[in-house]
Amino acid sequence: MSKLVIVGTVAFDAIETPFGKTDKILGGAATYIGLSASNFNVDSAAVSVVGGDFPQEYLDLLKDRNVDIEGIEIVKDGKTFFWSGKYHNDMNSRDTLTTELNVLEHFNPIVPENYKDADVVMLGNLHPLVQQGVLNQMTKKPKLAILDTMNFWMDIALDDLLSVIKNVDVITINDEEARQLTGEYSLVVAARKIQEMGPKYVVIKKGEHGALLFHDDNVFYAPALPLEEVFDPTGAGDTFAGGFAGYLAKTGDFSFENMKTAVIYGSTLASFCVEKFGTERMQNLTDKEIYKRLDQFKSLTQFDIELT
Amino acid sequence: MSKLVIVGTVAFDAIETPFGKTDKILGGAATYIGLSASNFNVDSAAVSVVGGDFPQEYLDLLKDRNVDIEGIEIVKDGKTFFWSGKYHNDMNSRDTLTTELNVLEHFNPIVPENYKDADVVMLGNLHPLVQQGVLNQMTKKPKLAILDTMNFWMDIALDDLLSVIKNVDVITINDEEARQLTGEYSLVVAARKIQEMGPKYVVIKKGEHGALLFHDDNVFYAPALPLEEVFDPTGAGDTFAGGFAGYLAKTGDFSFENMKTAVIYGSTLASFCVEKFGTERMQNLTDKEIYKRLDQFKSLTQFDIELT
Repeated sequence: MSKLVIVGTVAFDAIETPFGKTDKILGGAATYIGLSASNFNVDSAAVSVVGGDFPQEYLDLLKDRNVDIEGIEIVKDGKTFFWSGKYHNDMNSRDTLTTELNVLEHFNPIVPENYKDADVVMLGNLHPLVQQGVLNQMTKKPKLAILDTMNFWMDIALDDLLSVIKNVDVITINDEEARQLTGEYSLVVAARKIQEMGPKYVVIKKGEHGALLFHDDNVFYAPALPLEEVFDPTGAGDTFAGGFAGYLAKTGDFSFENMKTAVIYGSTLASFCVEKFGTERMQNLTDKEIYKRLDQFKSLTQFDIELT
Repeated sequence: MSKLVIVGTVAFDAIETPFGKTDKILGGAATYIGLSASNFNVDSAAVSVVGGDFPQEYLDLLKDRNVDIEGIEIVKDGKTFFWSGKYHNDMNSRDTLTTELNVLEHFNPIVPENYKDADVVMLGNLHPLVQQGVLNQMTKKPKLAILDTMNFWMDIALDDLLSVIKNVDVITINDEEARQLTGEYSLVVAARKIQEMGPKYVVIKKGEHGALLFHDDNVFYAPALPLEEVFDPTGAGDTFAGGFAGYLAKTGDFSFENMKTAVIYGSTLASFCVEKFGTERMQNLTDKEIYKRLDQFKSLTQFDIELT
């Protein structure tokens, strides 16, 4: 089976949306990526760190979904990374209420020995030096390195970010961040500039407006499924990345054509994620549900035009 | 040939964007709709009003693109409707600087005699009573009545708007307006509520994020073509409507499947409109250019997934 290395936070989140609020629940980029990638037949390992306060049941939950947790360091006398946020009424924007780095502050990622030759590495949103640290531990160059990041790192660690960006094949980034990174408003121009920075493939995430995949002069647009109700957008971007990476790891085909399909898988999985609070919807998703929704994506976008 | 009746403003626009500004140039909903629909092999007539200050060359321009101008009343001692606006840097929002209704204030639309049996009526953005006035003049019920409107009429003439909405088959409206009309944030729920108001088909325009077509439980998502440069968004929505109506009038097939194609034609034509100031790009568009761009739309959205 293909191997997938996932690096990112494993965390506590407290979330408030117009529909309700939660106490500290399971969150973190690596969590969402791992749960999403677990829908594909791959060996995946999460590389992260938690404190002694992190419940065993959360670790078990990941293990039960076939995410290898050997690479999740437990700092017994430390506290787990904690984020809390409140979404506005439109669910498209949010305020961060709390960010407690805790054990993340001195995180030194360790890739499990038997994952150092993984074909695919998914670098979830974390300090670019941590992302580079994971790449450095790989004994052979991964066939595909994917990087997710956010504006925070552009603000405080741009040089480190630009260094690691040089070393990856794909970047996933949201529209505002693509604009910030390049100073370009047009996403077409922004994507071209990002390709010049290193990644041959650029995925621009637009939330409820879908995602764009750029490569050379090719562009592919995957819509987001219009939903009756968005309950909690937390983790949607990571779930997208997990579906994208998981599908590519499973198929081992890193062509533009196959990446289009990977983007659709990512969008499909993200559409489930937002239906419930936190990771709830992702914990027991079935293949049947996924296939049904993929079918909806097909009818959502497919049309026939005879060009003469 | 199929007949298409178009009602809407024929106007002067003065536009300022980050890329430059214009003096009074040709504008108006019926102008953009007419120019866009002229790319299909249909007999179309614009129903509108202008003042004595309206240049003959603008009327000739419409005539040259096969838009019948018999229904454009010329009020010799009146002044043409004038709008001016300034776009913000992101090109997604704008401030209206001037609105001079002028001859539009007492506009009484008159549908040319030989268009009163038209199969398709496109009611461009105007006072709902004017839109209803056009429908009232049709000697036989059109096979397809399409209505475009905006928040302004919801604010000042909601009852009249709800009355005419009852009598149309399709409504085209932007996302914010759909939310305002229904009080629902979810576009899926908003579209369902609008269908209950009358129109069996609801097209929600999302600007650079594309358009959604709803009918019963079916939904179709047409992306907007990602562009290097958006020069002037003025008229893009009307150009979309003109392409949509023109294609449907030409084919005479008003099924959901064919409306999907109509949405793609609308999006394709709108993608040209924004490339230059005002109507400039629409004045001499060729079939060859349109087909080339339709082909881009196909590769933009088509993907293969084998569902097992």
